[in-house]
Amino acid sequence: MDNRIYIFDTTLRDGEQVPGCRLDTRDKLLIAEELELLGVDVIEAGFPISSPGDFESVSEIAKLVKNVTVCGLTRAVQKDIEVAAEALKHAKFPRIHTGIGTSDQHVFTKIKTTREDILERSKQAVKWAKKYVEDVEFYAEDAGRTDNVFLAQVVEAVIAAGATVVNIPDTTGYCLPEEYGAKIKYLKENVKGIEKAILSTHCHNDLGLATANSIAGVQNGARQIECTINGIGERAGNTSLEEVVMIMRKHNWMKCDTKIDAKRLNAMSRLVSEKMRMPVQPNKAIVGSNAFAHSSGIHQDGVIKNRDNYEIIDPAEVGVNESSIILTARSGRAALNYRLENIGVKLSKEELEIAYNAFLTVADTHNVVDETLLRELVSSLAINA
Amino acid sequence: MDNRIYIFDTTLRDGEQVPGCRLDTRDKLLIAEELELLGVDVIEAGFPISSPGDFESVSEIAKLVKNVTVCGLTRAVQKDIEVAAEALKHAKFPRIHTGIGTSDQHVFTKIKTTREDILERSKQAVKWAKKYVEDVEFYAEDAGRTDNVFLAQVVEAVIAAGATVVNIPDTTGYCLPEEYGAKIKYLKENVKGIEKAILSTHCHNDLGLATANSIAGVQNGARQIECTINGIGERAGNTSLEEVVMIMRKHNWMKCDTKIDAKRLNAMSRLVSEKMRMPVQPNKAIVGSNAFAHSSGIHQDGVIKNRDNYEIIDPAEVGVNESSIILTARSGRAALNYRLENIGVKLSKEELEIAYNAFLTVADTHNVVDETLLRELVSSLAINA
Repeated sequence: MDNRIYIFDTTLRDGEQVPGCRLDTRDKLLIAEELELLGVDVIEAGFPISSPGDFESVSEIAKLVKNVTVCGLTRAVQKDIEVAAEALKHAKFPRIHTGIGTSDQHVFTKIKTTREDILERSKQAVKWAKKYVEDVEFYAEDAGRTDNVFLAQVVEAVIAAGATVVNIPDTTGYCLPEEYGAKIKYLKENVKGIEKAILSTHCHNDLGLATANSIAGVQNGARQIECTINGIGERAGNTSLEEVVMIMRKHNWMKCDTKIDAKRLNAMSRLVSEKMRMPVQPNKAIVGSNAFAHSSGIHQDGVIKNRDNYEIIDPAEVGVNESSIILTARSGRAALNYRLENIGVKLSKEELEIAYNAFLTVADTHNVVDETLLRELVSSLAINA
Repeated sequence: MDNRIYIFDTTLRDGEQVPGCRLDTRDKLLIAEELELLGVDVIEAGFPISSPGDFESVSEIAKLVKNVTVCGLTRAVQKDIEVAAEALKHAKFPRIHTGIGTSDQHVFTKIKTTREDILERSKQAVKWAKKYVEDVEFYAEDAGRTDNVFLAQVVEAVIAAGATVVNIPDTTGYCLPEEYGAKIKYLKENVKGIEKAILSTHCHNDLGLATANSIAGVQNGARQIECTINGIGERAGNTSLEEVVMIMRKHNWMKCDTKIDAKRLNAMSRLVSEKMRMPVQPNKAIVGSNAFAHSSGIHQDGVIKNRDNYEIIDPAEVGVNESSIILTARSGRAALNYRLENIGVKLSKEELEIAYNAFLTVADTHNVVDETLLRELVSSLAINA
């Protein structure tokens, strides 16, 4: 089994499907350029038929990037595929991503048709796309809620029709990791010709499980993860690129890795957040401003002694300069002493005890005791600095 | 097996350990009151010895709430336990939460001692706490990285000493769900007397897996989940209360449930966000402002036809009034028509086609086409409204 995991970044397509997050073509080109440097394998650049702006963005990104596959989304509709092919015509490595709903909910309620018709339309869409590009990815929309037996039929049919990648989206973010993993396993074991295509995960975070589901997919044989920077996307968003990448790095026994340059993750996160005007919550894993900040006494003391006591990722690995020891009412003597030493104040044990008691009073009325307050504290105590 | 899952809310203790998030006692009392109404089983109200403000908050909350266990955190230190007991003396259902590090990293590097000493100090701490309260919870800090054989020895010892709940924290947020689940399973199968105590999950989100790990714990026999509103907490935060609660509600086959009144989740999230000045990212699962917002054409069309096509949670279940159809360049004709009908504009098929083309041009230069822009659009087309 090949343990290289391909990163399919859909920040510019599924990620951008967020109310209030419209990017112009210039912003998209800037992000695409950075994604290439970050080391993603595929950039899903947009949904060309959806609007003139989207068409232009896909077309310009296709001209710009050189070492990355550029992908355009379509429905299983001939016109969509023609327009996507046109938008991708200058791409060095073009991919058309087409598909249709396969769950009973989608087949019978949304599309109001039969499973046989879905099978036919799936194969037909792949054949249309194959006329323009070699690399065709098929998505079985709402695969998370699709009966595995029918899903296997669809996957087998589209691989036979030439699909190179098959995407198994948990469109509504419903699956538990064991369910999603079992689905991928079922396909690996029951689809004739499965070795001719890459299975891809595409998970949504409606129940907070997108990252865990993607990893469960990989552990059961998926070799591509569709994800976005900061986990942005419609509703509760998509799988976070930074989380899945670092999970594989930190769990070597999985023997799976990507070619992402993790040192670029922090800057990449900031760029996307700024351009999309989507703030990243301070406690976002890997890239949040507090991801490496310690404020409780027990933790600060532990980190000052040895970072490994409370940190599993060296902040430098993901492009953050250092972990922070933030002084609050939760901080202990070790943290206060550490921060005082950082501003050149060395105290005896007795002096530290006096300073610590005064510090607690200040800390109980302030959120954070910053450097200014710290210097005031030292002056007020007339401790010899 | 009893399938009632206890919710241990630590918003006011582990959640509040966030730089910049100091709450005063009045805010804490307000939040505690709402947590009681929400239906949590335990409120961890603070770490009494850490500061005078924390002591006061725990003490006041202990006097205030009537139907919920109030818990105070301590280290495995006699003085901590005495102070916590004092803070909790007015609680109707008091619990002392004590513990010590058990991983090799903590035992040998941080505490610089032996495993035998840790075992002794663990038992001793539980015995001290038992002098004051019947309900004693023990935490094996960094259990996520602790060797299971030693962890089982510690758990067995503290249960023999009288612990009623044993907390297995993944302190650094390192575990994968299968690892964390296997750890709980190992304890259930190998600890003598395990039936006398409740096993508790306490997961951190450093790799984005806190929710999945907590659920894996429950599936393997844990019956208490420690979590916070909005998943706030030090570094990347704790398990999100709203996520674990809704996962169990949406996966009936797990046959596990809490007594949380989910309709209060949305308001609870806003209260905590506002009081802690911690914004909730728009794409936060369950409680983010976009959690039920649809902006892509395919999804909007599907939701307008039938909400179940793209939503697994009825927004009303968690106290949100309705799902939103947001008009952006990603929207299709169905969404435009739906929103126009909402403002009393009914169009023929031909008129809709004209309006849609004009809409796309407006949408390509605006993030969101709001009601004002929509009315301008209708006027500019001189369509008969």
